[in-house]
Amino acid sequence: MTQYKYLLTEKDMPTHWYNIVADMETPPPPYRHPATLELLGPDDLAPVFPQALIEQEVSAERWIEIPEEVQDVLKMWRPAPLYRAHRWEKQLDTPARIYYKWEGVSPPGSHKPNTAIAQCYYARQEGLEGFATETGAGQWGSALSFATQFFGLKCKVFMVTISYHQKPYRRVMMETWGGSVVPSPSSETNAGRVILAQDPETTGSLGIAISEAIEYAVTHDGWKYSLGSVVNFVLLHQTVIGLEAKKQMEMAGDYPDIVIGCAGGGSNAAGLIYPFMQDKLTGTKPNLRAMFVESSACPSMTRGQYAYDWGDTAKTGPVTKMHTVGHGFIPAPVHAGGLRYHGMAPTICHLLSNEQAEARAYHQIEIFDAAHSFARAEGFIVAPETAHAIKAVYDEAMACKEAGEDKVILFNASGHGHFDLSAYDAYHGKDLLDYELEEDRLERALEDLPEIAE
Amino acid sequence: MTQYKYLLTEKDMPTHWYNIVADMETPPPPYRHPATLELLGPDDLAPVFPQALIEQEVSAERWIEIPEEVQDVLKMWRPAPLYRAHRWEKQLDTPARIYYKWEGVSPPGSHKPNTAIAQCYYARQEGLEGFATETGAGQWGSALSFATQFFGLKCKVFMVTISYHQKPYRRVMMETWGGSVVPSPSSETNAGRVILAQDPETTGSLGIAISEAIEYAVTHDGWKYSLGSVVNFVLLHQTVIGLEAKKQMEMAGDYPDIVIGCAGGGSNAAGLIYPFMQDKLTGTKPNLRAMFVESSACPSMTRGQYAYDWGDTAKTGPVTKMHTVGHGFIPAPVHAGGLRYHGMAPTICHLLSNEQAEARAYHQIEIFDAAHSFARAEGFIVAPETAHAIKAVYDEAMACKEAGEDKVILFNASGHGHFDLSAYDAYHGKDLLDYELEEDRLERALEDLPEIAE
Repeated sequence: MTQYKYLLTEKDMPTHWYNIVADMETPPPPYRHPATLELLGPDDLAPVFPQALIEQEVSAERWIEIPEEVQDVLKMWRPAPLYRAHRWEKQLDTPARIYYKWEGVSPPGSHKPNTAIAQCYYARQEGLEGFATETGAGQWGSALSFATQFFGLKCKVFMVTISYHQKPYRRVMMETWGGSVVPSPSSETNAGRVILAQDPETTGSLGIAISEAIEYAVTHDGWKYSLGSVVNFVLLHQTVIGLEAKKQMEMAGDYPDIVIGCAGGGSNAAGLIYPFMQDKLTGTKPNLRAMFVESSACPSMTRGQYAYDWGDTAKTGPVTKMHTVGHGFIPAPVHAGGLRYHGMAPTICHLLSNEQAEARAYHQIEIFDAAHSFARAEGFIVAPETAHAIKAVYDEAMACKEAGEDKVILFNASGHGHFDLSAYDAYHGKDLLDYELEEDRLERALEDLPEIAE
Repeated sequence: MTQYKYLLTEKDMPTHWYNIVADMETPPPPYRHPATLELLGPDDLAPVFPQALIEQEVSAERWIEIPEEVQDVLKMWRPAPLYRAHRWEKQLDTPARIYYKWEGVSPPGSHKPNTAIAQCYYARQEGLEGFATETGAGQWGSALSFATQFFGLKCKVFMVTISYHQKPYRRVMMETWGGSVVPSPSSETNAGRVILAQDPETTGSLGIAISEAIEYAVTHDGWKYSLGSVVNFVLLHQTVIGLEAKKQMEMAGDYPDIVIGCAGGGSNAAGLIYPFMQDKLTGTKPNLRAMFVESSACPSMTRGQYAYDWGDTAKTGPVTKMHTVGHGFIPAPVHAGGLRYHGMAPTICHLLSNEQAEARAYHQIEIFDAAHSFARAEGFIVAPETAHAIKAVYDEAMACKEAGEDKVILFNASGHGHFDLSAYDAYHGKDLLDYELEEDRLERALEDLPEIAE
């Protein structure tokens, strides 16, 4: 009989995270101070992040041990299943063999808790009282609220005002797990109060919410800031995805020709791709293709510059070299809220600039076409972010059909779309819009980058 | 290291459903014709249900083979994981060992597709064009829409008007999988038109929606009616839950003292409990306790009569002997929409009347207290229906603590609560109500039962 799922037991779970920096010929460029633009030392980050995470951020060790207690909480849903998409292959009539890792089985519904749990572990080790963070659509805020409860930490979430009102279910989810959620901009921080004074009717933005969360963290004793993507230590924690997938692909007797993930800050894609990328960087699998898929509404990798930029709108976070559309760029209101970040993880950008990986951007309607086709065949209704990866898989599978090639394609199904069904409703009702990139807006945003001589 | 999950592979999946009727000393009383009240023959059901399902309904065979194609679609998420609730045990400080089967991993989010898929298989075998059904909160309609797409069938769902407007996400889910959803009462059936003429502003009811779905099925060539609970063949299909759980409990080296499920029509509870109940009925485990948990708002087992009654409000479906609060009883608007059915599965009632099983009813606020405690420890946010089972487990675990007994408790976590977060919001905001049973209303509803001499 046909096998659909490849399952590992709790005993097969990875015991170490994989740090891709160890296998890069040169490390990615270092961080810079947001104000002085000088090289940033670990001390500069100390008020913001727990010490152990700062050490992981700058580590060049290849394997970093996953604390037993972190593994223990991950077991709540990990190892996650790997699927062979037999039904979708048949529907597409493609000779390609398509596999996907299904991260939607976690209680918050995405890959995000993989790092949230690790961060909470180190926060408690350090004796912290709580974590402050921002959230847009709510995936990251849910994951952090979920994780904090297992380590006796408090959780303060600044949720972009428009999402706070439009996605009340995500807020309720956070509150059920004990998180405290406020709409951002709020009156609880200087950053928030300034914006509210200028524009009391503002709907908020992720950039403002980040600034509020950082301010809250550094001005409250025992509190630090938690970030859900972009930085090395987050991508590191996500490598459990790819490490599991490698074992599962072995069970299936296959190895991918192409590995694909959607990328906003890049953490779910890197989580799946990096453990395979090790084989490419070390020469075992030189022809492996790694593909990062973004939204055409926020095309940092395909239309942005590879340049130094601030990580947040208010210029309070570190400056780093990355593909960016500019920290002031405001993307069109696509449903894939997780892909609306202006930058990209520095390690991913480093791989792209070394031509060891590739990037692609898609518009909103075509990604829902692909996700709908996937839901009709495989049953799972995915998040709009994940739909971007699915569209890339669709195109590659169709290219295989055209060329008569039986390539092996693996992608990360990073989350379910249970809280995104209004987007599917708009899609069914043909109310969904594609947005052309406003060239002048992009140009203006790219004018405000820091000047740093390398 | 602690083990949390017991996982089976696709190869370990049950190949046969378990039919509890084979192990009962006497079969449950037979069905009666809705109009004549005479004994019902298989031919009477032929216009409504596929032939193979009618045969299963009256079968006394102990094991009924699961067609390979049904197993194949079930593999999309089965075998489902069995969890040991280590964290919740610790939080409750109970010596009890608590296990749960997690059915929330199915794409529609509950146990419902276990039978939807089997029914669609037989419908296609019979060459049908489509299935009509009703849905309240949307769990069953989602499961049937999901299932029909794998067998090339159409799906027509009559969704209670108030839910159609209050739970748009469930509607979108059904439409994503290709279902056609109309608010009920609709103008598409005589039953609907009559009600709409009397009361154009009606919010509908499950009883009316059932009548519309049956009418639609019997008046359209190639269409039949699909039912998601109550009847024997549905409970039969759900026994995959308990058959898997028995193997998984064996892996855990434990056997339950108490098996618990929430019960509206009874299918998820029976699905878990019946394969264990076999051990009780055949004398291997005489002391096993089987507990069916209902809502105090619709207390058919704890406050209703064990009597003949119609299965639907409009008296178009079969008459059967069951615990009932009367087919005309309108329960208070508790969030657990799946527990608002006036009757109960005849085989469950038969076990109750033979004192081989027990029943319990809970109010709304206490079940959310229990579900919240569970979410804080185990991470999963369950459906309000499932919360009833959790409250019973909570009480039993506390009794163990009181008595210093280390009983083994197993329950069915039948579905997630991702579409029920407004109920959790009301709970957090202390806006949730308990409803006292209106005795005179129950009395009136019980006056309109058919008179049948046994």
